[in-house]
Amino acid sequence: MKIGTYSYEEFVQVVKSFHGNLAPGLLIGGFMVDLALKNVPEGEFFDSICETQVCLPDAVQLLTPCTIGNGWLKVFDFGKFAVTLYEKYSGEGVRVYLDIEKLKNWPEVNSWFFKLKPKKEQDSDLLMKQIKEAGDSILSMQRVKVEPEKLTRKKGGASSTCPVCGEAYPAKHGDKCRNCAGESPYISINNF
Amino acid sequence: MKIGTYSYEEFVQVVKSFHGNLAPGLLIGGFMVDLALKNVPEGEFFDSICETQVCLPDAVQLLTPCTIGNGWLKVFDFGKFAVTLYEKYSGEGVRVYLDIEKLKNWPEVNSWFFKLKPKKEQDSDLLMKQIKEAGDSILSMQRVKVEPEKLTRKKGGASSTCPVCGEAYPAKHGDKCRNCAGESPYISINNF
Repeated sequence: MKIGTYSYEEFVQVVKSFHGNLAPGLLIGGFMVDLALKNVPEGEFFDSICETQVCLPDAVQLLTPCTIGNGWLKVFDFGKFAVTLYEKYSGEGVRVYLDIEKLKNWPEVNSWFFKLKPKKEQDSDLLMKQIKEAGDSILSMQRVKVEPEKLTRKKGGASSTCPVCGEAYPAKHGDKCRNCAGESPYISINNF
Repeated sequence: MKIGTYSYEEFVQVVKSFHGNLAPGLLIGGFMVDLALKNVPEGEFFDSICETQVCLPDAVQLLTPCTIGNGWLKVFDFGKFAVTLYEKYSGEGVRVYLDIEKLKNWPEVNSWFFKLKPKKEQDSDLLMKQIKEAGDSILSMQRVKVEPEKLTRKKGGASSTCPVCGEAYPAKHGDKCRNCAGESPYISINNF
């Protein structure tokens, strides 16, 4: 049993190291990305879409060249456990999703996914065992075509110096940077 | 010279392997995250904010426990080269930013950052040399307080089954999933 180029046990270690804990969703995500990888033409460049922010993006980042920082991974906040790999010019690709019909065969995984019981009542060992045994049997696959133009990261364009904070920001954002325009996540900023 | 727990040369290799290429912004990002790490209390749990989508999030993911998938890294599309590490309960933290005044001492880095010449006229070797020599001397630091509640990832809540595609989605999104509600990045979807 392989996940990408890793054995299952190696992938478990890589997940712990990168993600900080052995998230069930990331193990299932490993099988999802692995299945997608097996179904895109070898040697081709592809980009990736995650339809949830939770766990799944880390499976993509661990198993493919796509990361948040290099822009080849796009994350949509759709709350759907689905991942797509697509050829970046044609937009043609493969979408793998967790199939809730197939999930019914694995009660502990089903119960975890649908939050059917409180976390402290979950049988974590059984959950991990069922995830490994289920492998890609709980997944389904579709051929998709995406609109690459819609997903291409816009170039930053010219920079301006913000008249408020004095830092550089994209001129196209207006007469000051988004922090100083009130979108800042900070309550207070103080120089050292 | 260390970047996190890596030597500079090791970090260069890790960047190539994870990010796919030796992006100048990710090397500078390494110095930024390293400087922030040195200024947060040791042994404390912290979350992270990147004020740009480009390159910098990968420095955070490589050097801290924060990733996109585990939710400890939040990315804002502000186009600002700044990163914050903050204590997740108090919201107190350190913000490191590229200081454009200090950048003037390093003409090739300055020219790259402000896109002052076409890429093919850039002296890539000189750029890499200046980034390494400059280290954290082109950075400045601030103490910040963030609003943790604003940045806490909302729990998914109850699931529904989408009447259109039959997949699970967050009930709070409405009567169908966001894909089927027209927000889909796909032009076409076909079963295998």
